[in-house]
Amino acid sequence: MDFFYAPGRNHLFVPGPVNIPEPVIRAMNRNNEDYRSPAVPALTKTLLEDVKKIFKTTSGTPFLIPTTGTGAWESALTNTLSPGDKIVSFLIGQFSLLWIDQQQRLNFNVDVIESEWGRGADLDALASKLAADWSHSIKAVCIVHNETATGVTNNLATVRKLLDEHNHPALLLVDGVSSICAIDFRMDEWGVDVALTGSQKALSMPTGMGIVCASPKALEAAKSAKSVRVFFDWNDYLKFYKMGTYWPYTPSIQLLYGFRAALDLLFEEGLDNVIARHSRLGKATRLAVEAWGLKNCTQKEEWFSDTVTAVMVPPHINSSDVVKRAWTRYNLSLGLGLNKVAGKVFRIGHLGNLNDLQLLGCLSGVEMVLRDVGYQVKLGSGVAAAAAYLQNTIPMISSRI
Amino acid sequence: MDFFYAPGRNHLFVPGPVNIPEPVIRAMNRNNEDYRSPAVPALTKTLLEDVKKIFKTTSGTPFLIPTTGTGAWESALTNTLSPGDKIVSFLIGQFSLLWIDQQQRLNFNVDVIESEWGRGADLDALASKLAADWSHSIKAVCIVHNETATGVTNNLATVRKLLDEHNHPALLLVDGVSSICAIDFRMDEWGVDVALTGSQKALSMPTGMGIVCASPKALEAAKSAKSVRVFFDWNDYLKFYKMGTYWPYTPSIQLLYGFRAALDLLFEEGLDNVIARHSRLGKATRLAVEAWGLKNCTQKEEWFSDTVTAVMVPPHINSSDVVKRAWTRYNLSLGLGLNKVAGKVFRIGHLGNLNDLQLLGCLSGVEMVLRDVGYQVKLGSGVAAAAAYLQNTIPMISSRI
Amino acid sequence: MDFFYAPGRNHLFVPGPVNIPEPVIRAMNRNNEDYRSPAVPALTKTLLEDVKKIFKTTSGTPFLIPTTGTGAWESALTNTLSPGDKIVSFLIGQFSLLWIDQQQRLNFNVDVIESEWGRGADLDALASKLAADWSHSIKAVCIVHNETATGVTNNLATVRKLLDEHNHPALLLVDGVSSICAIDFRMDEWGVDVALTGSQKALSMPTGMGIVCASPKALEAAKSAKSVRVFFDWNDYLKFYKMGTYWPYTPSIQLLYGFRAALDLLFEEGLDNVIARHSRLGKATRLAVEAWGLKNCTQKEEWFSDTVTAVMVPPHINSSDVVKRAWTRYNLSLGLGLNKVAGKVFRIGHLGNLNDLQLLGCLSGVEMVLRDVGYQVKLGSGVAAAAAYLQNTIPMISSRI
Amino acid sequence: MDFFYAPGRNHLFVPGPVNIPEPVIRAMNRNNEDYRSPAVPALTKTLLEDVKKIFKTTSGTPFLIPTTGTGAWESALTNTLSPGDKIVSFLIGQFSLLWIDQQQRLNFNVDVIESEWGRGADLDALASKLAADWSHSIKAVCIVHNETATGVTNNLATVRKLLDEHNHPALLLVDGVSSICAIDFRMDEWGVDVALTGSQKALSMPTGMGIVCASPKALEAAKSAKSVRVFFDWNDYLKFYKMGTYWPYTPSIQLLYGFRAALDLLFEEGLDNVIARHSRLGKATRLAVEAWGLKNCTQKEEWFSDTVTAVMVPPHINSSDVVKRAWTRYNLSLGLGLNKVAGKVFRIGHLGNLNDLQLLGCLSGVEMVLRDVGYQVKLGSGVAAAAAYLQNTIPMISSRI
Repeated sequence: MDFFYAPGRNHLFVPGPVNIPEPVIRAMNRNNEDYRSPAVPALTKTLLEDVKKIFKTTSGTPFLIPTTGTGAWESALTNTLSPGDKIVSFLIGQFSLLWIDQQQRLNFNVDVIESEWGRGADLDALASKLAADWSHSIKAVCIVHNETATGVTNNLATVRKLLDEHNHPALLLVDGVSSICAIDFRMDEWGVDVALTGSQKALSMPTGMGIVCASPKALEAAKSAKSVRVFFDWNDYLKFYKMGTYWPYTPSIQLLYGFRAALDLLFEEGLDNVIARHSRLGKATRLAVEAWGLKNCTQKEEWFSDTVTAVMVPPHINSSDVVKRAWTRYNLSLGLGLNKVAGKVFRIGHLGNLNDLQLLGCLSGVEMVLRDVGYQVKLGSGVAAAAAYLQNTIPMISSRI
Repeated sequence: MDFFYAPGRNHLFVPGPVNIPEPVIRAMNRNNEDYRSPAVPALTKTLLEDVKKIFKTTSGTPFLIPTTGTGAWESALTNTLSPGDKIVSFLIGQFSLLWIDQQQRLNFNVDVIESEWGRGADLDALASKLAADWSHSIKAVCIVHNETATGVTNNLATVRKLLDEHNHPALLLVDGVSSICAIDFRMDEWGVDVALTGSQKALSMPTGMGIVCASPKALEAAKSAKSVRVFFDWNDYLKFYKMGTYWPYTPSIQLLYGFRAALDLLFEEGLDNVIARHSRLGKATRLAVEAWGLKNCTQKEEWFSDTVTAVMVPPHINSSDVVKRAWTRYNLSLGLGLNKVAGKVFRIGHLGNLNDLQLLGCLSGVEMVLRDVGYQVKLGSGVAAAAAYLQNTIPMISSRI
Repeated sequence: MDFFYAPGRNHLFVPGPVNIPEPVIRAMNRNNEDYRSPAVPALTKTLLEDVKKIFKTTSGTPFLIPTTGTGAWESALTNTLSPGDKIVSFLIGQFSLLWIDQQQRLNFNVDVIESEWGRGADLDALASKLAADWSHSIKAVCIVHNETATGVTNNLATVRKLLDEHNHPALLLVDGVSSICAIDFRMDEWGVDVALTGSQKALSMPTGMGIVCASPKALEAAKSAKSVRVFFDWNDYLKFYKMGTYWPYTPSIQLLYGFRAALDLLFEEGLDNVIARHSRLGKATRLAVEAWGLKNCTQKEEWFSDTVTAVMVPPHINSSDVVKRAWTRYNLSLGLGLNKVAGKVFRIGHLGNLNDLQLLGCLSGVEMVLRDVGYQVKLGSGVAAAAAYLQNTIPMISSRI
Repeated sequence: MDFFYAPGRNHLFVPGPVNIPEPVIRAMNRNNEDYRSPAVPALTKTLLEDVKKIFKTTSGTPFLIPTTGTGAWESALTNTLSPGDKIVSFLIGQFSLLWIDQQQRLNFNVDVIESEWGRGADLDALASKLAADWSHSIKAVCIVHNETATGVTNNLATVRKLLDEHNHPALLLVDGVSSICAIDFRMDEWGVDVALTGSQKALSMPTGMGIVCASPKALEAAKSAKSVRVFFDWNDYLKFYKMGTYWPYTPSIQLLYGFRAALDLLFEEGLDNVIARHSRLGKATRLAVEAWGLKNCTQKEEWFSDTVTAVMVPPHINSSDVVKRAWTRYNLSLGLGLNKVAGKVFRIGHLGNLNDLQLLGCLSGVEMVLRDVGYQVKLGSGVAAAAAYLQNTIPMISSRI
């Protein structure tokens, strides 16, 4: 029942969905249960407590919504804003573009700050807009923490700093889909009002759970937000939280147990160690790209992403051929270039439950693919560059010392 | 990592989520995959073709949405209607009530036709309304095929007949959550415009996939429907269908493979046999209830449900105690009475991948529970009544003859 | 890939292999591992410690052999005895017969004490033989604790008492395949020298692990035992135990983790509770058989088995038809009558991870089958008799109170 | 419940147990079944037919024994030989040594032909012995096809040629544990009388099934072989084959279904392609070793093994440190040097369900480990050498073209 079988493991290096660790697969390998028995609420309670730790919030309220990242976006927006509300949103790549498209279709008044793809959010422009907005017409600033299409990480601390400097009350809504649990994220410290991610990203689960966390200010905003919403309405959740039954509609039992296992693994490794691991894998990837003589789509080091690297191919090469070849010959799954960078970049996702040798295997594969499609990279060059860095930085596995 | 472990199998007789057959659990026991590789579209294509068979439609367009039944409802409504549109909706129990609540919160003008809980939709009232609506102000008739709270199945063929008799162009939107794949359902023959179900019901999968099918007329309506929608927007799907990549956002790889396995099992058994099996299990359950001297919440035979039986307890008994006791002593999961019938009924779900001896085990458990809570049912009486019927009707297992 | 699929769960009531609980299936759902890494010995160490608890021994040495019960038998015999050694062995049914056959083929001098099938070991005969054996020519007494073919449990305490009364040094070798972990078994208290079981019986795992425990006296005997053995040689294990690597050859990683999970479940339920549960299910089954007007193959109450009941059918009925019909119509797996009782008995296995409603479902199925094959049992009669007893004895599930 | 957890996949490069492909893990993810129902024999029948294809025999009789490779050895010997029988056996490494140890303990008269570890079987010595044995006192020639400890593949065609040249009737017993399904093996063509392997090797399953195939001549020998055997006795199998129930004792249901899936994958890839893949991975590994400036323990190209490479470390390095470091820092499992080559070699297993990028990931890990332990290999050098070869030889994945 497999489509297009190939021997050996698939090397999954798209920036989501990512590899699921065996303990999570095991935890999900189960029959359904009555979600109205005492067991499911007892389980859910532990999840809601623990999810706050990975968002680094103590005051936030989490929602585990049976949806995808797109649905989590919609949940963030419709629960806090009213049609016509002015929001500032940064367009820096395909996923920020899709979110802006959603914002517009949800009838918000979106003030788009566009950057060249490969650059981060233009925070100077934000500063100007905030300075000019003495009437506080801007109701929310929406920002993608890590733009998955270009491998650009935005500086959220600065966004918060700007809002504070201008004493601006706008809500700060953050797409943390490809950052939370992989790149340093601090909901409370950075005054994020809504943060969200999806289960299939750094949490290393199957798709199907949109994880949204709302600050007290966001919950307050929800009381007056006039956007139409039912499925995504936080109030329905809050009502059931109060009753202690937690679920306004049926959750996936399997995802709940999978989330429990995923959180246990994260805490066993240590959240800081998880982030350090992503930082290491990100840097190693960039060193390989450099060794190959290729450019990173991300234009400056300050924006380098530790979860995905968008690699620019030379003009005579179509990056789609890289992706296609990787899959048809090496059982290697890479990410396509999207929209403006279609054909120009391919993407290496290096997030989730992943280790160094997996990455090096991928890099060696990319080298062969590049030669296959006509770029005469020196075989072993990227691997060597990455390994030279990794060998000095990989820690011992603490449970095995 | 199990909460509240008990030896032996859990006897899962809530009307959803239901038992998942082993081949489906197996099919889902897998790592993530790149959903942009050729494999996932190839798989998806087979699912979309086959889902039409279980909805009995050739002209319908299916959508497999990463959501629950509540989200599927929202998809049906927002894609076909505009705020302020008049719709007729039947209130006959908790789930039709919740759908009506959603309809109202989505700003439709809902004309509610209420029945006593335990009775079916008042189709005479519908007839009058259709007759009076010479201006065709009614844009849609919304009906729950099988009300899960009371065990009432509505007659959709009659609804269609009434619409036809009055040449009324209203869309017919049907919640088939606890009917499709278990109770006879004929999308094309009955002129249903949107039909929907959830993966965790008769399809016997985990929760997480809302399965929606739209008629050509519904798709046409979608072009002018002004309800705000993004996550649930069919257009995004249709755009990706055209491209052959199928997914506007990330699906659950596991649910797709699970659905493939579930469909394979359904076709192996034969859809007609599946429906006959549910009919048999429903009747057996009702015979047991009768033997126990208890009343079915469903007031007339014409409305008897083959997927769930709501059993009324004597006035001196609280049906919640039945459910609680079943779980805490017998590892038996029954459904609570909801809202108006809370405390008055408990529910036996008999849908999905289930066989006769499983049901008889459940019935024997209910008998003990009833005695535990103070109703002196004769032990074995319900089992005997059910078995007397079953022994004459269970077919040989065709693969084993 | 399933052979002879049928909807719903298979009702597995053969006396082994038995139902595997979900947590054990989950624990086994894993890739291979290097069994020479520190992880596998660390895991193994916990298993060897815990297996002693279920054998109720502190001085015994356990061996987890990649084999079946037949292999475990061979391990017990060849490690402790030399060709030509005289052993006393009881023939009371098919499995004791098979063990005797093995003993003879391994060239021991077997003094067989035969009983009518349905009766226990003739301990009076043993007493006579021990009394007469002033030269201590009998090197071992071999006894099956629970004869799976006839549902007969032998009294091991009495065997030990007889050996002690005669100050007889013979080794006591016990087949506990269908008793250990289900029927009270006390290795140390009863002075058992070798006890053994298989993973697929009361431990509720897949087949593949023969679990053997040797007393210090048995280990001493192993030093001089001249039976040829290599694969089954305990010395190879002991050598690796000493090195702390535990395995002379490759174990099944999956079974080791499965065993860990199975032991955890046993301890969570409590070994005494597990045994009480089997006692309850055994009695309930016998009450049903009585209500059906059928005879238990086991002739006296003192031998009644709590893990399997061999039910005698009336002369005009072939018990194989019962088994066949159960499988082809009801997805119910019962045990055949074997050898001398072929055609005369069918067997209901009620061991392993099983609960009361599962058993009642089975009993209701047996009732229908009996009518199918021409025995006019009153439907519900056995279920009622069993339930009347169970309702008074099933404890609350302790984790759920 | 995992011991010594580390993030990301374990890189399993011991020469067994090897990586299990997901479809096989899935196929084994199941409850027990009655092995006396018609389903298990129907499944078994397909396995017995198909196992002959992977042994390349049409006249052989396969046995699927619930045991390990050590048990399979014992089965081969005890079924065909009598105590005191003279056999010629080649000692070329740890596993041939262990087999010889077994042969001696089973009381055969073993004429050992020893080679230096790292060299193949001394076939000249065999020729001399055969020439001298005009009385045909040699009853069997026992040879390990691929010595897993040193990475040496023996030339079986030549062994057969020698036997034929001398018209010698000795049985040819072959340990194919680390060759069958990975290295070209032709039971019928090479006149092998008993061939055997274990499930956890190139078949890529869990441990627990010894797969033995006997020629008609071996079956004939079994009739007069006087070695004591019960558990391993082929006759018991043959008796049940005749009855069509196939199993003298309980098989592992899970392994049977796993074997079905494993065979399906092998046939889908094509046995010739599987062998070509192993040849490619073996050569790539050897090129890497050469690039590292290290020696292969295997002394001549004619003996190079395509399933395992034993790499010699410089004198100042302890190869155990390589293995330890690989596991404690890189989650990489390598094989230890055993016995005579302990401390001197580490082993890279490259057999089973494995692909090129997995191997390259492993090789990059070995490079870092080597530097960690004090051998200043140039990072990327081995990967580059391997990749240069692989890029020219890896075929397109046929299902994906």
